[in-house]
Amino acid sequence: MDESPRGEGTLSERALQHLLSALAETAIPRDLAGGSARAERKLIRASGLLALSIDPSLGGLGVSFGGVLDVVRRIAAVDSSLAHVFAFHHLMLATTRLFGSAEQATRAERETVEGKLFWGNALNPKDTRLVLSGAVGARRLHGEKSFCSGAVDSDRLIVSAIDAHTQKLVVAAIPTARRGVTVQEDWDAFGQRQTDSGTVAFDGVAVEEAALLRTPGPLGSVRASLRPCLAQAILAHVYLGLAEGALGEAQRRHLREPSARSEDPFVLARAGKLSLAVDGAGLFAERARRELDRGLAAGDALTARERGEIALSVARAKVSASDAALAVGQGIFELLGPRATTRRDGLDRFWRNARVHTLHDPLDHKLRELGERVLLDRVPTPSFYA
Amino acid sequence: MDESPRGEGTLSERALQHLLSALAETAIPRDLAGGSARAERKLIRASGLLALSIDPSLGGLGVSFGGVLDVVRRIAAVDSSLAHVFAFHHLMLATTRLFGSAEQATRAERETVEGKLFWGNALNPKDTRLVLSGAVGARRLHGEKSFCSGAVDSDRLIVSAIDAHTQKLVVAAIPTARRGVTVQEDWDAFGQRQTDSGTVAFDGVAVEEAALLRTPGPLGSVRASLRPCLAQAILAHVYLGLAEGALGEAQRRHLREPSARSEDPFVLARAGKLSLAVDGAGLFAERARRELDRGLAAGDALTARERGEIALSVARAKVSASDAALAVGQGIFELLGPRATTRRDGLDRFWRNARVHTLHDPLDHKLRELGERVLLDRVPTPSFYA
Amino acid sequence: MDESPRGEGTLSERALQHLLSALAETAIPRDLAGGSARAERKLIRASGLLALSIDPSLGGLGVSFGGVLDVVRRIAAVDSSLAHVFAFHHLMLATTRLFGSAEQATRAERETVEGKLFWGNALNPKDTRLVLSGAVGARRLHGEKSFCSGAVDSDRLIVSAIDAHTQKLVVAAIPTARRGVTVQEDWDAFGQRQTDSGTVAFDGVAVEEAALLRTPGPLGSVRASLRPCLAQAILAHVYLGLAEGALGEAQRRHLREPSARSEDPFVLARAGKLSLAVDGAGLFAERARRELDRGLAAGDALTARERGEIALSVARAKVSASDAALAVGQGIFELLGPRATTRRDGLDRFWRNARVHTLHDPLDHKLRELGERVLLDRVPTPSFYA
Amino acid sequence: MDESPRGEGTLSERALQHLLSALAETAIPRDLAGGSARAERKLIRASGLLALSIDPSLGGLGVSFGGVLDVVRRIAAVDSSLAHVFAFHHLMLATTRLFGSAEQATRAERETVEGKLFWGNALNPKDTRLVLSGAVGARRLHGEKSFCSGAVDSDRLIVSAIDAHTQKLVVAAIPTARRGVTVQEDWDAFGQRQTDSGTVAFDGVAVEEAALLRTPGPLGSVRASLRPCLAQAILAHVYLGLAEGALGEAQRRHLREPSARSEDPFVLARAGKLSLAVDGAGLFAERARRELDRGLAAGDALTARERGEIALSVARAKVSASDAALAVGQGIFELLGPRATTRRDGLDRFWRNARVHTLHDPLDHKLRELGERVLLDRVPTPSFYA
Repeated sequence: MDESPRGEGTLSERALQHLLSALAETAIPRDLAGGSARAERKLIRASGLLALSIDPSLGGLGVSFGGVLDVVRRIAAVDSSLAHVFAFHHLMLATTRLFGSAEQATRAERETVEGKLFWGNALNPKDTRLVLSGAVGARRLHGEKSFCSGAVDSDRLIVSAIDAHTQKLVVAAIPTARRGVTVQEDWDAFGQRQTDSGTVAFDGVAVEEAALLRTPGPLGSVRASLRPCLAQAILAHVYLGLAEGALGEAQRRHLREPSARSEDPFVLARAGKLSLAVDGAGLFAERARRELDRGLAAGDALTARERGEIALSVARAKVSASDAALAVGQGIFELLGPRATTRRDGLDRFWRNARVHTLHDPLDHKLRELGERVLLDRVPTPSFYA
Repeated sequence: MDESPRGEGTLSERALQHLLSALAETAIPRDLAGGSARAERKLIRASGLLALSIDPSLGGLGVSFGGVLDVVRRIAAVDSSLAHVFAFHHLMLATTRLFGSAEQATRAERETVEGKLFWGNALNPKDTRLVLSGAVGARRLHGEKSFCSGAVDSDRLIVSAIDAHTQKLVVAAIPTARRGVTVQEDWDAFGQRQTDSGTVAFDGVAVEEAALLRTPGPLGSVRASLRPCLAQAILAHVYLGLAEGALGEAQRRHLREPSARSEDPFVLARAGKLSLAVDGAGLFAERARRELDRGLAAGDALTARERGEIALSVARAKVSASDAALAVGQGIFELLGPRATTRRDGLDRFWRNARVHTLHDPLDHKLRELGERVLLDRVPTPSFYA
Repeated sequence: MDESPRGEGTLSERALQHLLSALAETAIPRDLAGGSARAERKLIRASGLLALSIDPSLGGLGVSFGGVLDVVRRIAAVDSSLAHVFAFHHLMLATTRLFGSAEQATRAERETVEGKLFWGNALNPKDTRLVLSGAVGARRLHGEKSFCSGAVDSDRLIVSAIDAHTQKLVVAAIPTARRGVTVQEDWDAFGQRQTDSGTVAFDGVAVEEAALLRTPGPLGSVRASLRPCLAQAILAHVYLGLAEGALGEAQRRHLREPSARSEDPFVLARAGKLSLAVDGAGLFAERARRELDRGLAAGDALTARERGEIALSVARAKVSASDAALAVGQGIFELLGPRATTRRDGLDRFWRNARVHTLHDPLDHKLRELGERVLLDRVPTPSFYA
Repeated sequence: MDESPRGEGTLSERALQHLLSALAETAIPRDLAGGSARAERKLIRASGLLALSIDPSLGGLGVSFGGVLDVVRRIAAVDSSLAHVFAFHHLMLATTRLFGSAEQATRAERETVEGKLFWGNALNPKDTRLVLSGAVGARRLHGEKSFCSGAVDSDRLIVSAIDAHTQKLVVAAIPTARRGVTVQEDWDAFGQRQTDSGTVAFDGVAVEEAALLRTPGPLGSVRASLRPCLAQAILAHVYLGLAEGALGEAQRRHLREPSARSEDPFVLARAGKLSLAVDGAGLFAERARRELDRGLAAGDALTARERGEIALSVARAKVSASDAALAVGQGIFELLGPRATTRRDGLDRFWRNARVHTLHDPLDHKLRELGERVLLDRVPTPSFYA
């Protein structure tokens, strides 16, 4: 499971280890407290990992998106909230590359390296309350967006809105500090408590033409339609990290303090069954990373069918990781017994985090897509959820 | 499911409804706060329901234990912590009847009615740190007990200890206020947070002969060995109440605010599957109540085989209710979607309560007992967990 | 599980036992051979059980439909094919009562008693190839029906057809021997091999007015719409019998020849889990029988809501019995090991019978109906499958 | 899934395709008929594939064992009985390499190529009725062996027996035609019907010293203890082939004749869920093949821990493929509906084959081993089943 990212760039393993240790140390009390993890976000900025996916020619570490996902998985094993905001930062950068022009992407990445910028999300196509109106040179955003992960304490936002003229979705990259943007700290879920996935209000926020990602625009080409695959793959890797983190915790406790339970055949068989689910999800995730990297590398040569197969590969990773994370989050307690249920130990956070996060979009629809592939030899039509 | 208790006595339905409403009103904030629910325990005292299982000739309501279990189920649907301490109060009374002499039981029940006494639990045979030493007339308890549900704010305790002379288990009924008893408010689980299931320390606590339940003593007769069946049946009914409470909450929300999800065939089929599990557990519980009442009524005529069949009937109720409570606690969110995951709404308490409480003793061993019955036509040997 | 039928009439337990033994003796070779079980159908005729559901005033045994279902369950444990044709005989009689006039029903029942008639099924609304045409006095049936269980060797048929004038479903009761009726022995499934569920061809078969069940007609009243509930309840009881039969066989083998497997905790826990599924299905079935009898007794006072609740109760029995029969049919081999897989022993017939029979109509739709009840407080609209 | 074997040798894809087509053509009637598939065994001999795993220097195709497993999987998709005897032929050859000396293995392989020999199995450590007695030069086998797959119509047998002197297991390679060997055609299971897994009787069969595989002998070194891993991996690939074959059949039918069922979301989601299980098993199998090949290549440098990890990797493949094969064998009918249950179509053979074959050794023990790995960081001790 510990394979290192396979991008051309280099990830500083020491920087990552340092970050993982620091996050692990405070993960339990921060889960109880909730709110924005400003100190830990500072650690992430300091780690240099915000440049992980950026090309070395622009000062980045040049790790492929598959490599980023593997890092996301490892962070999620100790802190799935920060894994999510970290992952979404890289998704936002990828969005500029996939929906925008080369110039827009290059500028975004260069500024990110130079300013150690942290990107947040305000792209949520299901929430249609945000509207872009006005003519060229006088465009303004009015309205609200919900579920804006990582918007608090961010430097840049990727925003989706309905264009008042065309009634189509437009996507823009703007500074969080721009006048009229109000990031509300109103996220109050019982899991993924430090993802800051609350509301952002836009009160007549100016949007210059250069901020609009229109070439090719959202899902504007086969290649652009890989973007939802990246988002779904991030979810899968956060779930996988949660599952692996919980199982790792169970092992640490059994090795540290063996008990009668450690030799109970039923407990062992349950652990074996859970590990099988987690390992299976790990293999699906590994394959999805490989295929995503291949798809991204193909650029505009990517065919619709290939994109469809990638989407299905990601769907397999996501469904299996979702099931695994919930199963381990619940089953860890049968492995460890009633004394593991203290609030102080906080082992319930694995289930709570998995439970909140796995509701992003319904798995049954993913299963239906997988069924269309196996029964009817069809791949899904690109959308923000397929 | 709304069948009324079938004891000869009468339960004041109005008093119960009143209690249920009052508990429901504050259940969510109290779950977040944890700690002892002193105000709500006062409401239970005031309701008269502490006399529910006591014979009318002694001033009680004369409801059968099966009837009590049904009330436990209904309370658990709104507040499973208080359902548990309420149920254990009645289990402690039943313990005086099953392990002690008629005089001991009658005295305990009369005092309970007169003093509106609330009983707490310090009987936990797995924890062997508490020792009864000294000769007749000078017996003392030294040591600690863990998992003492309902001990905080109680008037009486049922205590189990190891007799220093015989190395056997002894059980006694003593006032909580007795010198040397220290009830610690150290319960810190992430579920069943207001059951006060912490530690009680005994520092040379005097125990008079009349307090020892020795006729017939713990599991001292076939009839006495129904006591673990009552304890297990209580667990089953708390789990069942949790499952029914969670499903009821899902219905209330769908009726109040129908959405696209209300007509999604996958969501409906999931709800149907969950309801099937809950209804099945309900039927097992109903049968277990009937058989327990019949077994208790049989008194010393009860055969070992009959007791074994009752234990298995209770085991079926417990396993099925445990599965149902966990499944609904987890699955309710697929029925309601991501917006139902706020801390404010507290819907995760169903899973947290079920998760903590269902770890009492391993279900796999119950399944093995059921397997011995179906494959080998054997019933379990009485123990505190079978 | 051995409760006796609760109708007013009396079932000859000895006659039933005799039939069960005779069927058991030859069940395995007959399963391998397939085809029509003429000798065993003769035994059923001889047993007097074809009059089981008929009123004593007409010479029947007067057992309620719930009581009939319990007999069906017991027959299915040894021979689920003959249980099915036996059950459908009684369903056909009930159809004359529910869709036809009192006179039609009385005549059908009287003739059944007098002639020891065996009824077969040609009512299959999904197959719309059979058409009734012609004017009053000259009506004729043309076309074919598939899945006609028990038609081979039958005396009477209940037939559904499309009325050429109204395009509506009509149902008639006609003698199998009538000119133009050809019962084909073309049933070739890998399970339920002796149900003779093949094709019946109708080549200008005359239908007199008195044969048409028009008062109130198919699903023509709330009471008439209980008919699909009866059909579905029969399926549930055949599945339940299969599951109980398979588990019983596993017990017989373990008691006869105990082995290391008999004490393997994993084997026992698996057996326990299977028995829990079967017992749960048994409780649902028991409740469905009770509610069906109550619904039938209510006659035209039955409300649509009550009918809906009965349908859901039957659905619970059916889904749970279907799952149990498949699970036991598959799991019995883990209880018994590889030496139990000989063709000679024929233990695979439980799975094959369950597999073929449980495909009657999709369970997912039943789960959706149960979901509509629990989430939206709705009962299903009557149809031939709900 | 279609990856080609990665050994250095070359598999004639055309020869394999030809064999697959020929087997597919007659698989259904042969399943009904049972018995030895002499004609198809002749086709296998003619295909040259009996030399698949043999080194090119000895005239073989030089495909790695992982490559052989992949061929086994593909054959199993059309005929799991012949896949099994084909696989066991190669397992027998590998047994000479792993338990015997280089000379013994080389001789066995050379003779196999020259004589187009087909090897059969009489190695079954659980059946201890076969005894090797007598002094050097006069050793004889007396007794019987059960479950001797592929013994009928074979040229060579690998036999295990108890050494009368040492009471230890000895393994020998002898000609099937040797005087005193009687291969009984008494295999009568309801699945895997053409594996000829019946009894072989040995009546004073002479065994020369050169036939005894004693260097290093059964499980006589870390490398030798890979042999059970190969056997278990074969099972996994037969199961996987069954699962893939069944799903492939479901797709063929839906593409050939689309129906309402083809667009039913529940049917599609069920298909998706099944495909996820099959694909997951496929990934585990792929990894196991890779690790087995690496382990075999390591030779005596293989450490006990590495061997343990390989055994666990194979266990994951086996458990997941077993579950997948049973699930698809059962679930295919929900994808295709009641009309797919004819005996003529024979689709039940997937379940019957999976059911019989997956009972080889209990999966629960494999799950326990996986649990020991994940909870306690332990690998299994080598045995014939771990």
